Amino acid sequence: MSAVSTPPTAPVRRDAEATKATILKAARHLLARHAHGDITLKAVAERAGVSAPLILKYFGNKDALFARVMSFEADADVLLDAPLDELGAHMVRHVLFSQSQQGADPLLRIVFAPLHGEQGDILRANFRTQVTERLTARLDGPDAGLRAELAVAALLGLGVIYGIARGTELRRATLEDVVDRYAPAVQVHLTPGSGTRRS
Amino acid sequence: MSAVSTPPTAPVRRDAEATKATILKAARHLLARHAHGDITLKAVAERAGVSAPLILKYFGNKDALFARVMSFEADADVLLDAPLDELGAHMVRHVLFSQSQQGADPLLRIVFAPLHGEQGDILRANFRTQVTERLTARLDGPDAGLRAELAVAALLGLGVIYGIARGTELRRATLEDVVDRYAPAVQVHLTPGSGTRRS
Repeated sequence: MSAVSTPPTAPVRRDAEATKATILKAARHLLARHAHGDITLKAVAERAGVSAPLILKYFGNKDALFARVMSFEADADVLLDAPLDELGAHMVRHVLFSQSQQGADPLLRIVFAPLHGEQGDILRANFRTQVTERLTARLDGPDAGLRAELAVAALLGLGVIYGIARGTELRRATLEDVVDRYAPAVQVHLTPGSGTRRS
Repeated sequence: MSAVSTPPTAPVRRDAEATKATILKAARHLLARHAHGDITLKAVAERAGVSAPLILKYFGNKDALFARVMSFEADADVLLDAPLDELGAHMVRHVLFSQSQQGADPLLRIVFAPLHGEQGDILRANFRTQVTERLTARLDGPDAGLRAELAVAALLGLGVIYGIARGTELRRATLEDVVDRYAPAVQVHLTPGSGTRRS
């Protein structure tokens, strides 16, 4: 072993971001399997392959870490980042890309709300204000709130089949094939009457 | 208190079916919140308001009860009971009716697979053979397996928004309004090119 330590350079910042992402992913994994109150910081640290003090350094405390995991804010920023007339395709593509390339999903953790008692209600409230109401605000025309919920429903179902049921056909298909097939059914709720239809 | 017992009549059989349904509902509730191995027969009995021996009388043992809850067979019988060209509307209506009238969902328990370790794989295998492959067998044309998974995805998402996220707009809407809006996006995967479109 050499006694000369590597000097910190540019990658350090990137490593910190990667480590934070690993910690968040570990926390999400555990929150899909155990009630909020049963998850220890130690369990998150072990799964992420880091020390508990490092988690505290990055996130402050366990509650702050879980609040971050229970927020959809950052995910909604990316999910909704497209012009309205392309938003259906963008959202379907983003869900598929997140699932297939990152083993993650921008929205799917809402399904674990029943596991978490009162914390589940926080998750539901976040989902409403940060996802469906934010999408609703983008929509013109009548029944925008209902249309936003139906568009989001279609996205959630895609995540369930990919990430939870592990549908073999969906996992085998190309991303753009699935976007072509599924996005019109999302877009039709966003801009009724303007969606293209697969024949 | 009268010493005269009420003689058993026709309602007894109906009561037995209702009790079985209550027990199954209690088991489903617990399986959405606790790992399979942590759920006791006593907990199911308490939630259902019956005795543990009564559960044993109806279902044999705990494993048999959970095997029943983890099967989609009976639900798929009802879900798929329509001609192919009306199946999208029928399935959407059935999910909404189950959610709003029975506080249940024919498919949604697949989302709790991550909670249950190896039992979750049984749930996934059942879902594949009893739901998606059975639907696939009904479909004509290319990519029937993928199209079945996408149709089922749309149904699952609707259940997530209704039953888990508790979408306020979806719960406020009339059943037939939602069927009109959402069923075409399911039907298009079943019979591509023949779906009607909302303008």
